[in-house]
Formats: sequence, structure tokens, C-alpha cells
Amino acid sequence: MLKILDYAHHLMSKAINQGETAIDATCGNGNDTIKLSEIVGENGKVLAFDIQQQAIKNTKKRLAEQGISNVEVIHDSHANVEEHLNPEDRIGGAIFNLGYLPKGDKTVITEATTTIEAIDNILTYLKENGIVVVVIYHGHPGGETEKDAVIDYTTSLDQKSYHVLRYEFINQKNNPPFVIAIEKR
Amino acid sequence: MLKILDYAHHLMSKAINQGETAIDATCGNGNDTIKLSEIVGENGKVLAFDIQQQAIKNTKKRLAEQGISNVEVIHDSHANVEEHLNPEDRIGGAIFNLGYLPKGDKTVITEATTTIEAIDNILTYLKENGIVVVVIYHGHPGGETEKDAVIDYTTSLDQKSYHVLRYEFINQKNNPPFVIAIEKR
Repeated sequence: MLKILDYAHHLMSKAINQGETAIDATCGNGNDTIKLSEIVGENGKVLAFDIQQQAIKNTKKRLAEQGISNVEVIHDSHANVEEHLNPEDRIGGAIFNLGYLPKGDKTVITEATTTIEAIDNILTYLKENGIVVVVIYHGHPGGETEKDAVIDYTTSLDQKSYHVLRYEFINQKNNPPFVIAIEKR
Repeated sequence: MLKILDYAHHLMSKAINQGETAIDATCGNGNDTIKLSEIVGENGKVLAFDIQQQAIKNTKKRLAEQGISNVEVIHDSHANVEEHLNPEDRIGGAIFNLGYLPKGDKTVITEATTTIEAIDNILTYLKENGIVVVVIYHGHPGGETEKDAVIDYTTSLDQKSYHVLRYEFINQKNNPPFVIAIEKR
């Protein structure tokens, strides 16, 4: 069975096609950004958001090292995604890694309100069969609140419009991350 | 994203190899039995259990129609699986569909005690990287109790010995089935 991050990447690979636009809503140290860059290919585009200067710097460094040029790194909240898209744009998929920046300032965390605002905005741009993958880290202070809010929000999405999957290993200690994935029907 | 039964079959296909032994713990109308028969191939073997005569009859009829000969259909409780295996036997995987026989007597249901006894027995025969897939139907009377018992049992399995995954669509009405899968490490 695929581990959490491998499964998140698997879902992105299945849903997003070459040439499409994808969003890394929390680029952090750039791991998912690079993965999305590969998936959309040279004719596609990745928008990579983060509110932390350190994350922007780390991601830009990784991209430069690998000679990647199909990514726009955006120092802004993912809640403002609309400001970086045209109304007619369509997104193949998006990924969120909730929580704090690994090896960064653990007091700066994603927050329920802006996370849900961002997901909600991105859904309006999502293509048919496109996917939003949310990797929920919830062991840190504030994580539980955000987890509950994301579950409440996604559980209430209309099943006629979206499939919402929860993929979680349930016998692990220490609040391991799990996936919630939203597929547009 | 794969639907529940497709995902259950996907997990079985990935874990079980040609020539191995697999178990359909609740053969019902034979759908999963046939799937397992294909997966293990002509050199493998499927043990298909059911406590209901109607299920045994339906499954045998389906197998005969398709000329399938690598299945042993067993009219017994899956809790007695040990009586049909040798101590040195190894199982590639097993599947349970909990609840009642589709189109059959809805008052005859799988029960928490024997379901967990059967899972527990099968785990001792499971090969490394083998899998037990449990499809949990829980909308019928008694289903909720069994669901809770299976979740309690599987959540408590040692993470050093097993990965336990829950795969569930969380925005659907009317208590849809979901998957719990146990992979031996």
C-alpha cells in the first residue's frame, strides 16, 4: 500500500496531464513543486505559493539547481490564488501540505480559515476529474483545529459535484499525516 | 480515484501473486471469488467460505459457468479457516465483504465476533506484504456494531507488524461501504 506522500503524488500524477496548470498551495521546501513541474511538463505551468520568505527562497534555490523553468513562485497566501489566475483558467490539480515549514519556524502554521478559503477558491477553477490533494499534518499546536475544519468542509461538499476521499493509516502513533482528496465530477 | 470495490480489487491484485493461495472469506454471489481466481491463476488456489447454502450454490454455479477449477468452495464459517489450512500454508491475501448476502436473506449478517476471529486467524497465515481487505457495509441493522468492532481491532494492531489503511469516501450519504486493509510488514 502506498505511503501517504507517495499516494498524494500518485493521485496528482493520475489526475493532471502534461500541458496543464497545477498549484502547489504550500511550496515549503519545494518537494511537491518539483513533482508537479515534472507532471505538467515543459508546456505546463505550476503556481507555487507560500507566505514565508524562507520557503520562497528554498523553493527558488531547488528549482534553479535543477534548471526548472515552468514554475512561478509566488510569495503570497494561497487564499489569494484568484489574483494570480484569469477567470477562464482551468487547473488540473492542486496540493496542500498543512502545518509548518519543515526545518522552519514551527509557530508559523497554515490556518483553518485561509486553508478552506484557498481550497474553495481552487475548486472553482478545477477541471472535470481534476483533484485537490490535502496532506493533513495535525500533531502540532493548532493542527487539530485545522484538521477538524478541513474535515467539516470537505465532508459537506455535494457528492453530486465531488468525490471526497480520506486515505489514512489508522494504527500509527503520534498523529501521522493523512490525505483528503477532492475530485471534481 | 478508484471506487471502493475497484480499490479493494486493486489492492488484492497488487499483493497476491500467481500460484499463491487466497481466501474469499464471504463468497456471497462469487464476484470476488472469480476475481481472486484470476489473480492466483491456474497454479494458485482460492478458498471461498460462506455460511449460507444459497451463497455456496450461487458461487458454485458462477464458477461452473465460467469453467473455473482453482476454487474450493467451503460451506463453513470463515472463523474456522484454520480447519481448512495446514500450519505451514501461507496466504497471499484475503477479502471480506461484511453485511448480508446481496439479494439474499438480510437478517443473516456477518457478526463482529466471528469476523474478528477470522481476520485474526488469517493474519497468522498471511505472507509478508500479504493483505487482508475488509469491505465494511454498515447501513443495515447490526452493521454499526460490527464496523466499530473491526475498527477497534484493526486500530490496535501493532504498527511494527502491520500497516492498517482506511480508504473511505466521506461526503456520501446513506452509509456507503468503505475499505479497511491490513498489510503484513
